[in-house]
Amino acid sequence: MTTTRAWGAPAAGAPLEPLTITRRDLRDDDVRIAIEYAGVCHSDIHTVRGEFGPREYPLVPGHEIVGSVTEVGSEVTTWQVGDRVGVGCFINSCGTCDECVEGEESYCSRGPIFTYGGRDRYTDDEYSQGGYSQEIVVRDAFVVRIPDALPMDKAAPLLCAGITTYSPLKLWEAGPGKRVAIVGMGGLGHVAVKIAVAMGAEVTVFSHSEKKREDALAFGAQDLYPTREGVPRDFANYFDLIINTVSVDLDIDDYMRLLRYKGVFVQLGLPPAPMETQARMYTSKRRVLTGSLVGGIRETQEMLDFCAEHNVTPEIELIDAFRVNESYDRTVNSDVRYRFVIDTATM
Amino acid sequence: MTTTRAWGAPAAGAPLEPLTITRRDLRDDDVRIAIEYAGVCHSDIHTVRGEFGPREYPLVPGHEIVGSVTEVGSEVTTWQVGDRVGVGCFINSCGTCDECVEGEESYCSRGPIFTYGGRDRYTDDEYSQGGYSQEIVVRDAFVVRIPDALPMDKAAPLLCAGITTYSPLKLWEAGPGKRVAIVGMGGLGHVAVKIAVAMGAEVTVFSHSEKKREDALAFGAQDLYPTREGVPRDFANYFDLIINTVSVDLDIDDYMRLLRYKGVFVQLGLPPAPMETQARMYTSKRRVLTGSLVGGIRETQEMLDFCAEHNVTPEIELIDAFRVNESYDRTVNSDVRYRFVIDTATM
Repeated sequence: MTTTRAWGAPAAGAPLEPLTITRRDLRDDDVRIAIEYAGVCHSDIHTVRGEFGPREYPLVPGHEIVGSVTEVGSEVTTWQVGDRVGVGCFINSCGTCDECVEGEESYCSRGPIFTYGGRDRYTDDEYSQGGYSQEIVVRDAFVVRIPDALPMDKAAPLLCAGITTYSPLKLWEAGPGKRVAIVGMGGLGHVAVKIAVAMGAEVTVFSHSEKKREDALAFGAQDLYPTREGVPRDFANYFDLIINTVSVDLDIDDYMRLLRYKGVFVQLGLPPAPMETQARMYTSKRRVLTGSLVGGIRETQEMLDFCAEHNVTPEIELIDAFRVNESYDRTVNSDVRYRFVIDTATM
Repeated sequence: MTTTRAWGAPAAGAPLEPLTITRRDLRDDDVRIAIEYAGVCHSDIHTVRGEFGPREYPLVPGHEIVGSVTEVGSEVTTWQVGDRVGVGCFINSCGTCDECVEGEESYCSRGPIFTYGGRDRYTDDEYSQGGYSQEIVVRDAFVVRIPDALPMDKAAPLLCAGITTYSPLKLWEAGPGKRVAIVGMGGLGHVAVKIAVAMGAEVTVFSHSEKKREDALAFGAQDLYPTREGVPRDFANYFDLIINTVSVDLDIDDYMRLLRYKGVFVQLGLPPAPMETQARMYTSKRRVLTGSLVGGIRETQEMLDFCAEHNVTPEIELIDAFRVNESYDRTVNSDVRYRFVIDTATM
């Protein structure tokens, strides 16, 4: 085993602090990665605070990880020392269920092993510790390549925010001639706007206030509409696809009625209360309510290549490690444009 | 104008009674049909009782209509005197919106004109009166052919119950290797079972009690499970498609969790209260909640041809017109196996 510097929470709800954690010795199919940058995702905050259920502590979060390969196991053929690579939200899955065989490991029917806060029951029950650290050891099949055209720091948020939005945009065919609405323009939402624009769709943003209009237009959206005083009704039966990136309780029918015939509403977050929705929203127009959870490894690579080709990069605020607790508070207060990324050299 | 014998409600909530109503003179694109049979649909009951909103009275319900052509307008080329034909839930639509152009007239973006209880704003604002009558005049484009292999009386319920269930089963690809659950085995549900079986799917029925198990097996279902004491959990992540034919308030998540990855739940009825559903039902498995409303004319013809080819016929109880009020009470009490059909010769 090796040790590595990290930042993590000593207990649920406690501030993050510097830690030293261990990484396993390389198995035959493992890759050792020197982490350079790690994105701060809102779900990191929920998880370390115990809001997504109990966890073991200390817990090192982080599932938007980029760095370079420093060592490979004896059977690794895909990766070489020096490769620019990334690790996303999960680091193992059963490998044999229908979903895994399809390459949709995030929907593994036995459950994927998340990058932090989970025990890898498919191998030796090791507790996973995430990317707010200087080194990680991961199975080769759960590593993706960062294309040369993408800057390493800006690539980090793509590993979660990028694939989480790319996957439903692709599945539900955002593209030329399609009208796409993005609800919420935070970490996920701003990447969703950029990807949907790059796919050729007409993109509209629904945001709490008008504050982010200029940014939305700069990202290629046709316009931004504030929802603080209600969702505008002007767009009834208008959109083909709505991606909801916010996790608060919304009246989803306010958005559902904006969908045209066969239009699709994709839920990405987990609001506290059940969603309430009228049956006639669906019967009258064959509308669809569905959801999405990250995306598989193959599609994550596809997304990275797409972003490299179309110059899609998240807007980031690069921070030193000692500012991570501050970044949590600011993320919770929506005071970030649009994603914090930790420079792990500062750990 | 001609007159015809009919049964209808003189006022909202009043029992149906014999009436004489008028039918328009033939326009160039009209077809006159001598009605032989008319099915009794649960929505007839809701509509005449004013439960689907205010209507004009007297009101003659009935949108499961079969009969033979007795006269055609000067420009009608599709139909000839003597043709066995049917009329379903709508008799006109705008004809120009995307949905109409696609042949999905039931989703006409300006609204289809229903077979009874609606004013035809696309022509002369005539109030539509339905199939509990001996004659009807309908635009040629809204008439379908009853294949010779289908008995006329049993064909009637296909015009609503048949297309309403066929359409989502087709859209969401019920067929060999697919596991389909039908919730509720009444007028719609029993046809859904037969059609899904004919499509080659493995079919499971969820019904209030065990009473209809023998029938379900006879219709080709693999089994029937009672839900009175809760929806069985044995089928978690099992079904590809669930068709919900009941209109009461259900905990839809009880069924949602029975769907596998990308599984689809189709709502056909309009329960009184909003549906409550947890976001994680969708994010964790990409499940889909959607709905369906009848189906277009082209697909209705396809459904009739499919039923003729696969010997799919509804189970009916043929009644004389004077028993229609009794049939309403029995339908409301689920005391029918499985659809009342009125012999209009008895009017």
